[in-house]
Amino acid sequence: MKKYTLAIHGGAGAIPPTVPEDQKILYFEALEKILKYGNKLLKKGETALNTVELVVNKFEDCPLFNCGKGSVFTFDGGHSMDASIMDGKNRQCGAVTGITRIQHPVSLAKDVMSNSKYVFLNGKGAEEFAKELGYKFKNKKYFDTVKRYEQWRLVQGSDKTSLDHNAEFAAAPKGTVGAVALDIYGDLAAATSTGGMTNKKWDRIGDSPVIGAGTFADNSTCAVSCTGEGEEFIKNVIAFDIHALMMYKGLSLKDASEYVTHKVLKKGIGGLIAVDKEGNFSLPYNTLGMYRGVATSKGIFEVKIWE
Amino acid sequence: MKKYTLAIHGGAGAIPPTVPEDQKILYFEALEKILKYGNKLLKKGETALNTVELVVNKFEDCPLFNCGKGSVFTFDGGHSMDASIMDGKNRQCGAVTGITRIQHPVSLAKDVMSNSKYVFLNGKGAEEFAKELGYKFKNKKYFDTVKRYEQWRLVQGSDKTSLDHNAEFAAAPKGTVGAVALDIYGDLAAATSTGGMTNKKWDRIGDSPVIGAGTFADNSTCAVSCTGEGEEFIKNVIAFDIHALMMYKGLSLKDASEYVTHKVLKKGIGGLIAVDKEGNFSLPYNTLGMYRGVATSKGIFEVKIWE
Repeated sequence: MKKYTLAIHGGAGAIPPTVPEDQKILYFEALEKILKYGNKLLKKGETALNTVELVVNKFEDCPLFNCGKGSVFTFDGGHSMDASIMDGKNRQCGAVTGITRIQHPVSLAKDVMSNSKYVFLNGKGAEEFAKELGYKFKNKKYFDTVKRYEQWRLVQGSDKTSLDHNAEFAAAPKGTVGAVALDIYGDLAAATSTGGMTNKKWDRIGDSPVIGAGTFADNSTCAVSCTGEGEEFIKNVIAFDIHALMMYKGLSLKDASEYVTHKVLKKGIGGLIAVDKEGNFSLPYNTLGMYRGVATSKGIFEVKIWE
Repeated sequence: MKKYTLAIHGGAGAIPPTVPEDQKILYFEALEKILKYGNKLLKKGETALNTVELVVNKFEDCPLFNCGKGSVFTFDGGHSMDASIMDGKNRQCGAVTGITRIQHPVSLAKDVMSNSKYVFLNGKGAEEFAKELGYKFKNKKYFDTVKRYEQWRLVQGSDKTSLDHNAEFAAAPKGTVGAVALDIYGDLAAATSTGGMTNKKWDRIGDSPVIGAGTFADNSTCAVSCTGEGEEFIKNVIAFDIHALMMYKGLSLKDASEYVTHKVLKKGIGGLIAVDKEGNFSLPYNTLGMYRGVATSKGIFEVKIWE
């Protein structure tokens, strides 16, 4: 049997272990379901690229996570989603920012990669492109979930933003999502999707749609998807830095990903998931917790929030 | 006397050496004037960060170059500008995309860095941020230059885009601009500003506002600003890759920047300017020409388009 590995994340942050038991169970169940789905895809021979897209689509449909359906509210009460995807085989990639009415932003990012000569499309223009491809549009209501609204009401009108894992929002839905995979053909891929920060202003763009920062994949080294305070991931070009440490310094996936998480980034900033061409995986974070899971052809199947 | 170095570019592309003599003279004169201005700033002790901003401002005011005033037309006849800036001292950075009415997008990027908690702001939101800071807005007419209009009319309504250095546009204004500097305090900085591609569609974002792709600076290695087909620079995280090759593989600035230009990027894609902490500079490109210049404390003062 050929090797494969899938790792997923549903966001990193100050998730207190005191989260009510029924909430914990909801998250564990959702992560398990999504991981099981992706595991099955890879097992039956789906490509890494299609798998990370389809897995992220499941996150985008689940109101528990901050992307797609469950996206947080912006400063002016709207939703603004970002996503990106990258194929490790050839460094082909696609990204979108400022998406307001598409159910699966990561699929639109994949279409930018496959069906345009561009890599990165913005807001209105990206949605025009989607229209030309026959995408169906959701109305705003589809994205207005009750928990997200409550979160936003807590900071509405103030200059406060929040990664939505801050303690005060502990019981509410959480974080950026992502998936990375090695498929049975030896190819790597990575995808990331997010609703951004609650109460974000001025059409802020985080690291999720920035290739090299929030997402990177190259068959010669690794596939990476990040989550946390996007600004720090952009400044430090985190996803590509893991590739560079492996490529140029010969570090292992584990050493490279732990180095950037604990030495380059400051404590409390975020985390990431990474797989390499051997099927090794690494899921480091420097926050209280990170929603995550990993499944491999060797039978590993794990879902965790804390250690 | 303390060392300093300034390098500038006004875009790379298929600039044919057959450009009419009077056009060449205009470009040489403009580049010389801007280089002289920046050289004076560094000589009298201005910081690298302020120098790259002020030098790029001069480009943004000159209709010869594709940024600010001289920005090309988009598919629907508008203008959409991107810019970024980075401080090598601390990796602080700022970027904006989809700017339509600001005279100096690179200064707005610097304000994002200095006066917001974000790194990357988008379109309308970025312009709201500018308004709060008291920026004056230009009306669209300010950016409607005759040569740019003629360029756009050649491809209007078609799906053709162009880096504006393609042969058919030879006599018209050219390219993305950028500046990188080492100041007498030993600090590095980089800045990039662009009006994008003529006839670009769907609010395409190129590499200019993408930290790690079009712009990067770190005192421990180098400052880099890129120009060319942005998609290839994004995929390959070019600016940061030069940093990584120097940091992790011990390559010189020259070897690292030539490696990415000639081995990572395909021929005809673009070029870049880079300086290191010793004041060395490198201005490689894989196109027919690149508008560029370099000035140092040792008395080098050169402006070139071809070899």
